[in-house]
Amino acid sequence: MRLARLDCETFHNTMSKVSESTVRRLSLYLRFLEEFEAHGTQTVSSETLARLGGTTSAQVRKDLSFFGSFGKRGLGYSVSELAERLRDILGLQRSYGVVVVGAGKMGSAMVLHGGFARRGFFVKAAYDVDEHAVGRQLNGVEVRHADQLERDLERESIDIGVIATPPEAAQRIAEQLVQGGIKAILNFAPVRLAVPEGVLVKDVNLSLELEALSYGIRNR
Amino acid sequence: MRLARLDCETFHNTMSKVSESTVRRLSLYLRFLEEFEAHGTQTVSSETLARLGGTTSAQVRKDLSFFGSFGKRGLGYSVSELAERLRDILGLQRSYGVVVVGAGKMGSAMVLHGGFARRGFFVKAAYDVDEHAVGRQLNGVEVRHADQLERDLERESIDIGVIATPPEAAQRIAEQLVQGGIKAILNFAPVRLAVPEGVLVKDVNLSLELEALSYGIRNR
Repeated sequence: MRLARLDCETFHNTMSKVSESTVRRLSLYLRFLEEFEAHGTQTVSSETLARLGGTTSAQVRKDLSFFGSFGKRGLGYSVSELAERLRDILGLQRSYGVVVVGAGKMGSAMVLHGGFARRGFFVKAAYDVDEHAVGRQLNGVEVRHADQLERDLERESIDIGVIATPPEAAQRIAEQLVQGGIKAILNFAPVRLAVPEGVLVKDVNLSLELEALSYGIRNR
Repeated sequence: MRLARLDCETFHNTMSKVSESTVRRLSLYLRFLEEFEAHGTQTVSSETLARLGGTTSAQVRKDLSFFGSFGKRGLGYSVSELAERLRDILGLQRSYGVVVVGAGKMGSAMVLHGGFARRGFFVKAAYDVDEHAVGRQLNGVEVRHADQLERDLERESIDIGVIATPPEAAQRIAEQLVQGGIKAILNFAPVRLAVPEGVLVKDVNLSLELEALSYGIRNR
């Protein structure tokens, strides 16, 4: 067991060179490319992607260079080809089953989020221990008792577990998810999860986001 | 007007060298230091901070070097002194007034979050346009009609605005916040906000977090 990686670091389990910042920018480039596709634009330059993404064209070219050769010098990138390659790189050519554990405000927000299914992330079930929560439907997604989680993971095809429980329950839930074969966890609980090698954890810590702002206010 | 910066980039308005990743790690180091403080530990090495934070001791020393000289060679850092310095660097020696615009699931989760007040972030009010939401109390925080936002910003001391509205309302709300003197925005809406130079925007985009996981699954 090792401590799970924290944000904005390289995923050292799976790839040695590609940072989370690069992956995040690839997601952003894909969004811009899809806007261009929707408007019928055929080609785009690294300068345009850089401007939209708030970065430099050198960074755009570097981000893409990890994954092979793209574009023609002086002609830019084909919008549709690059979008297709990015969807492939980001693993968006398939769909993912998601479970959300903890159906409080944050968990419910994840279940009810409108944009995930469009990207291929399908929330199959939510889990809670609160009697008032269990049995409810969140936009067609059933809230089940957390006791069912392990059994359900054996029966259903789930790729990603979202932990939105109180901090003291998070490690136990992470272990159940790992036990059930889950290899990717999105963690909202403000604790460092210990997971075996090979399990990816992305932490979303809203206190850290606020502190980035207080840092900015302090150091402006 | 310019497009707001996206995540995991440097805050180029306010500081040229210090990346968001560094700021995030400083927040994490502070958490570890506070755990050590609570346990009465007096000194800590860069190696220990590195191990806890999933990074290298060279990175720890580099992160801290932006802000002056810390620690004594061979003796490590004084836990209490470094914690105090980090609270200062991160702007946590004072409190911040926060408003949350959009009192849906995500906005409510922000209002009800237990950890923010402990860090000095006080949610003063929430805003919505929905008749069912307006007038409710969320853990003592009143949900007001969004029409009141501009007037309230003139009267109350608010530092940080959280945007948790539907995407189509986000830019308008950002402009109201800026008009009301807000210099720091936490944005959950999946749109790039255009804000004037000098206004910080941190985007939290949960689709991007899921895509970081699908990337990891695809490229494991």
